[in-house]
Amino acid sequence: MQRHFQEEIETLKLNLIKMASLAESSIDLAVKAIIGRDATLAESIIAGDGRINALEMEIDNSIIDLLALQQPVASDLRLILAAQKINNDLERIGDHGVNLAESAVALAGSSSATSFLMIPRMAEFAKAMLRDAIDGFIHNNPDLANKVLRRDDEVDNLNRATASQAIDMIKLNQQDLEAGLDLIRVSRNLERVADLATNIAEEVIFIAHARVVKHHLNAEL
Amino acid sequence: MQRHFQEEIETLKLNLIKMASLAESSIDLAVKAIIGRDATLAESIIAGDGRINALEMEIDNSIIDLLALQQPVASDLRLILAAQKINNDLERIGDHGVNLAESAVALAGSSSATSFLMIPRMAEFAKAMLRDAIDGFIHNNPDLANKVLRRDDEVDNLNRATASQAIDMIKLNQQDLEAGLDLIRVSRNLERVADLATNIAEEVIFIAHARVVKHHLNAEL
Repeated sequence: MQRHFQEEIETLKLNLIKMASLAESSIDLAVKAIIGRDATLAESIIAGDGRINALEMEIDNSIIDLLALQQPVASDLRLILAAQKINNDLERIGDHGVNLAESAVALAGSSSATSFLMIPRMAEFAKAMLRDAIDGFIHNNPDLANKVLRRDDEVDNLNRATASQAIDMIKLNQQDLEAGLDLIRVSRNLERVADLATNIAEEVIFIAHARVVKHHLNAEL
Repeated sequence: MQRHFQEEIETLKLNLIKMASLAESSIDLAVKAIIGRDATLAESIIAGDGRINALEMEIDNSIIDLLALQQPVASDLRLILAAQKINNDLERIGDHGVNLAESAVALAGSSSATSFLMIPRMAEFAKAMLRDAIDGFIHNNPDLANKVLRRDDEVDNLNRATASQAIDMIKLNQQDLEAGLDLIRVSRNLERVADLATNIAEEVIFIAHARVVKHHLNAEL
C-alpha cells in the first residue's frame, strides 16, 4: 500500500509538471503572438485551452481518489492539499493565456503604430517566476519559492509604469485609444500571472515549513 | 467521533457563511463608495480586508485538521474539498472588493462629471449571484446553483457594454480618460466577482451530483 501511495504521489507531481508546462507555454506563445502581431498563433492558443481545463479536472479527480483511498496525514496531506491549490492556480494562468491571446488578436488587427512598452520584460519576469515556483515545488526547495515572493513587487511596479505609459500614449494620440487599452489589459494579465506564481510559491513554502505565509504582510484580525 | 465530526462540519459551514457575508459586504460597500464618491468609506474597506484573509486561513487550517483527524470519505470528503475551494473563491472576492475600493478612491478624487453607466446594475447582478451560490451551498440546493450559472453570460454582456460605453465617453471628451479607465476597471472587477460566484455554484453542483460541471461548455482533450 505504501509503495503504491508513493507512486501515486509521483504521478500527481508529474501531472502538475505537465500542467505547468502547458500554462507556461500558453503565456509564452501569447506574448509572441502579441509582439509578432500574429492572430493565427493567438487563435491556436485560445483553441488549446481545453487541454489545460481537461488536465485540471483529471488532476482534481486523482486528488479526490488519493485522499479517499489512502487517507494520508501530516506532510503527505499537506502536499496533496497544496497540489490541489497549485492545480487551480495553473488553470487560472491558462485562462490569462487566453485573455492575452484575445488581446493579441485585437492588437494584430489594429492599425495603431504602437510600441509594446515594457510588456516583453514583464513577460520574462512572469515566466521566470512561474518556472521558479514550479521548480521549487518539484524539488521541495523553499529558497526558490522565496526568490519568487521577492520579485512580485517588481512586476507590480512594471505594471503600474506600463499602464501610465499607455495612458500617456493615448493622451498624445486619440487614435491609439483602443490599442492603449489593449496594452493595459495585457500588462494587467501578466501581473496576474506573476501573482499566481506567487501563490504557488507560498504553497511551496507551506509544504516545506508547514506554515502559512499567505497574507504575510497584511494578516490581522 | 461521528457526532463530533458532524459538529465540525457545521462549524465549517458557519465559518463559510461568515466569510461569504464579509465578502459580499465588501463588494456592496465598495459599490456604495463608488456611487457616493466616498473615499473615507473606500479606505475602510481596504483596511478591513485583513479580516477576510485571517478568516480564510482559519478555515483552511480547520480543513486540514478535519481531513487529518477524521479521514472522511465519499460525500463528506467531497463537501470538505469543495469548502476549501469556496473559501479560496470568497477570499478572492474580498480582493476584488479592495480593487473596487481603490477605484472608488480614484473616482472620488476625479473632477470628471461621469455617469456610472451600467455599474449599479452589474453590482446587483454580481451580489445576487453570490448570494444564490452561497444559499445553494448552505441548503445543498443545486437548482439555486444552476440559476447562478445561467446568469453569468448576462454579466459578461453587461461588462462588454459598459467598457464600450466608457470608450465612447473617452472619445467624446479626452478629459474623461482616467475616469473612463477607472469605470472599465470597476466593470471588470464586478464581472470577476460574478465569475467567482459561478465557480462556487459549480462546486455546489459538484457536491450535489458528484460530477464536475466546470468547463462544461469547452471540455475537450
